[in-house]
Amino acid sequence: MALDVPPGYRALKEADVAAYLAGVPVVADSLGGKPADWKVREVGDGNLNLVFVVEGPKSGVVLKQALPYVRLVGESWPLPVRRAFFEHQALSAQRAVVPAHVPKVFHFDETLALTVMAYLTPHIILRKGLIRGTVYPKLADHMATFMAETLFATSDLGQPAASKKKHMALFCGNTELCRITEDLVFTDPWRVAEANRWTSPQLDLTAASVRADGPWKRAAQEYKLKFLGEAQALIHGDLHSGSIMVTESETYAIDPEFAFYGPMGFDVGALLGNLYLAFFAQSGHEAKAGARDDYRGWILSTAEQVWTLFDRRFRGLWNTRHRGETFAPGLFAEGAGPAALKEAQDAYMRRLFVESLGFAGCKMTRRILGLAHVEDLESIAQPDLRAECEKRALKLARAFMVEGQGFADIRAASDAARALQRETVK
Amino acid sequence: MALDVPPGYRALKEADVAAYLAGVPVVADSLGGKPADWKVREVGDGNLNLVFVVEGPKSGVVLKQALPYVRLVGESWPLPVRRAFFEHQALSAQRAVVPAHVPKVFHFDETLALTVMAYLTPHIILRKGLIRGTVYPKLADHMATFMAETLFATSDLGQPAASKKKHMALFCGNTELCRITEDLVFTDPWRVAEANRWTSPQLDLTAASVRADGPWKRAAQEYKLKFLGEAQALIHGDLHSGSIMVTESETYAIDPEFAFYGPMGFDVGALLGNLYLAFFAQSGHEAKAGARDDYRGWILSTAEQVWTLFDRRFRGLWNTRHRGETFAPGLFAEGAGPAALKEAQDAYMRRLFVESLGFAGCKMTRRILGLAHVEDLESIAQPDLRAECEKRALKLARAFMVEGQGFADIRAASDAARALQRETVK
Repeated sequence: MALDVPPGYRALKEADVAAYLAGVPVVADSLGGKPADWKVREVGDGNLNLVFVVEGPKSGVVLKQALPYVRLVGESWPLPVRRAFFEHQALSAQRAVVPAHVPKVFHFDETLALTVMAYLTPHIILRKGLIRGTVYPKLADHMATFMAETLFATSDLGQPAASKKKHMALFCGNTELCRITEDLVFTDPWRVAEANRWTSPQLDLTAASVRADGPWKRAAQEYKLKFLGEAQALIHGDLHSGSIMVTESETYAIDPEFAFYGPMGFDVGALLGNLYLAFFAQSGHEAKAGARDDYRGWILSTAEQVWTLFDRRFRGLWNTRHRGETFAPGLFAEGAGPAALKEAQDAYMRRLFVESLGFAGCKMTRRILGLAHVEDLESIAQPDLRAECEKRALKLARAFMVEGQGFADIRAASDAARALQRETVK
Repeated sequence: MALDVPPGYRALKEADVAAYLAGVPVVADSLGGKPADWKVREVGDGNLNLVFVVEGPKSGVVLKQALPYVRLVGESWPLPVRRAFFEHQALSAQRAVVPAHVPKVFHFDETLALTVMAYLTPHIILRKGLIRGTVYPKLADHMATFMAETLFATSDLGQPAASKKKHMALFCGNTELCRITEDLVFTDPWRVAEANRWTSPQLDLTAASVRADGPWKRAAQEYKLKFLGEAQALIHGDLHSGSIMVTESETYAIDPEFAFYGPMGFDVGALLGNLYLAFFAQSGHEAKAGARDDYRGWILSTAEQVWTLFDRRFRGLWNTRHRGETFAPGLFAEGAGPAALKEAQDAYMRRLFVESLGFAGCKMTRRILGLAHVEDLESIAQPDLRAECEKRALKLARAFMVEGQGFADIRAASDAARALQRETVK
C-alpha cells in the first residue's frame, strides 16, 4: 500500500537532524553553540514515531517525527503522519491550562509532521520507575491536576458550546488513531484476532473464557460506544504510564497524538488501570515475596489519591472557573439551588468515577490479551509468575467493567486489588 | 448589528421568485409552462424563514429562503443564513435512508441560502390537524420509521466511525441554531428571562415555583449536558408537530435546519412531547366537555405506537443493517453472546426511552413558560381554560424529567397523562 504523506515529507535520519534544526532559529538559540556541537541520538522506543534527542551546549530538545506507518508493525500498517498535527494541537490546548505538566513546544513543521519540544531530563518514563519501585511523591497531585485542568477546560462546563464545537470539528479528523483504540482496546481481546497474544499456554483457557464471557464482552462494547459517541472533553487519549515523564518533583504528560473529544473517564481510567497493572506486576519484580509490600501500598494509595484529588480539583473548577453553557453556578444560587447543584455534581462525579473504572478495566485487559503489552508484565521473565500477575489483573479488570457500580469509592477499588493480591489464582 | 450574509445574498420578494426559478431548468421543467404562468405566494408562518409556494401548470414547488435574522423577533436577533446549508445537508442524509418521508429537493443555492423542494399538497402541518381533531392512521408508523431509519443510519451502530466523524465535523458548524435550543429549551424556563412569557396571571405562581424547583432545574441542566455532549446520531433537532406535514396516508418530516450530531432522545422526545401537549390542549378545542374523548384516546395510542414501533424498527435495523464499529452482531453470535446482545439492546433502548421522556418534558415546559409557544395551547381563547391545560402538561413534563426512571414503559407515560387529565388542577 502506498504510504500517504504530504508533498515534501521525508523521514529524518540522525545525520539530517542538526542541519534541519540549524534552520529553526528559536531551537538553534535554545541549543546554543553551533550545529557541529550538537549531539543527536535516535531514542524512539515507542510504537509509532521517530524520536531524536538533541543536546547542545546550552540545553537539549526532543525532535519527534511521525512515520507514515506503525513502527511496531512496519509499513504494512500505514498510519497518517497528520497525527503529529493533532498532537501539536492537543499539546497547545493542554499547555494553555496546565503548563507545569506539559512539555514546551519550540517548533512544529506540518509538512515533516515533526515537533521540537523541550528535552525533559533527568525525567524518565513513569512505567520504568514503577518497575524499579521508585516512589514519586508528587505524582498523584500532578496528574490529578493535569487531568482536572485539561478535561474541565475543554468540557461543556469549561468552555462555551461554539468554541467546543469548533475545536471538536478539528479533532474529528483524527480518526485513524481513534480507530486503533477502538479495535485494540475495546474489541480484539474479546474475539479471535490475529494480533492478539498472551502468556501461553498459561493464559490459553483464560483468554478463551474472556471471549466467551457475554456480560464482559457486552461491557466492552458499551464502553466502546461511549468512546465513539460521548464528546465530553478533549482527552489525551493514551494516558498510560508510558506517556508520563517523571522525577521525584516533576511530572509531564507527553504524546497526546490520540487526542480527540471523547469520554473523560478514558483518560482517568488509563492512568488508574496502568497503576493497578503496575501493582499486580510487583510480584515479578521483588527480590523475595513481600519485599515490595510497601511499594504496593504506595501504588494503591497513589491510585486513591489520583481519583480523590482529581474529584476535588474538578469540582473546584466547576465552582470557580465555570465558562460553559450548562450547570452555571449562577443558575443555582438561590433557595433549593445550591443543594440541587451539589447533588448534580455528586451524580456527575459518581458517573465519571464508575466510567473511569470501566475504562481502566478495558485498558488492563487489552494489555494482557491484546496486541500491545506493557513492560511491567512483559519484563517478568518467569511465565508462570507473569501469568499469575496477569490473572489477578484480569479479575480486577472484569469487576471494573461489569460491576463498576458496586465500587462505592476509589478505596473500594484498591481494596479489591489488595484482596486479589492475597488470593491464590489458578 | 450588521447582518452576516454571503456576498451576493439578497432576500427574494414574491415578484422575484418566478424569474429566479426560470433560471433553474430542473425546477422550470417540473413546474411546466412559462414563468408568467406560475403563481407565487409567500406563506411563511414559521419563526425563521421566507417560504414561497410556486404553482405551475404541471406541479408546484416550495422555495424556502433563510433570512439573516429570526423572523419572529426581527433584525435585532441575527441568525446566520448558513443554516440553509445544514438543512440541505440533513435533508440529503435523511432522504438517502427514508425517501418516503422527506421532501424531494430540486435545487440548493448556497449564496442565497435557498432550497427548492417539492410542494406537498394537500398535506397540512400536523399541529393544525391535531387541533382540528383529525385522525392520522399512518402517523405513528411513518414517524417511527423516519426516526428509526435516520437515527440508526447515522449512529455508531449504523455507520463506521470515520464516516460519522466526518459528517459530525460538518454539522459542528451549526452552532447558532443549537444555541437557540440550548437557551430556550433547557435554561430560560427555569430562570427569569426577558423572552419568557406565560398565561398570566394564571400561571404566575407556577412559573415562579418552576424557577425555584431545584430537582427540576437540575434535570433540565442534565438534559442540556446530554444535548451539548452526546453525539449519538444526526438528529433532526426540531421534530415537533409543526415540522411534520401529513395527509391521512402520507407523512413528511420537514425543516431540519437545527440538525446536528446529538442525542437521539431529543428527536423522539420532541414528537412525544408535542403529542402530549396536543392531548392536554384538547379541552380547549372540544365543543363540550368529553366531546374529544375518542380523539384524546387516539393521541395517546399514537404516542404509544410511536415509541413501540420505533423500538421495534431500531432493534430490527441493529440486527440486520449493522454497519458500525460497536455491538456488531457477529461478535455476539456464539455461546452467551446472543443473550448478552439482547440484554445490551434492552438496556440501550431503555436508556433511550427514559431520555426521550426527559427531552419531551423539556420541550413541553419551554412551550408553556418560554419564548416560543404552540398553537395547540395559544389558540385556546379562554385563559383560565388554557392555564388548566398548561398546568396539567407541566406536571407531566416534570415527572418525565425528574422521575423518568419511574415510567416502566410508554403505556405508563400515557397512563400518567390520562390520570392528569382527570385531575382537578389548581
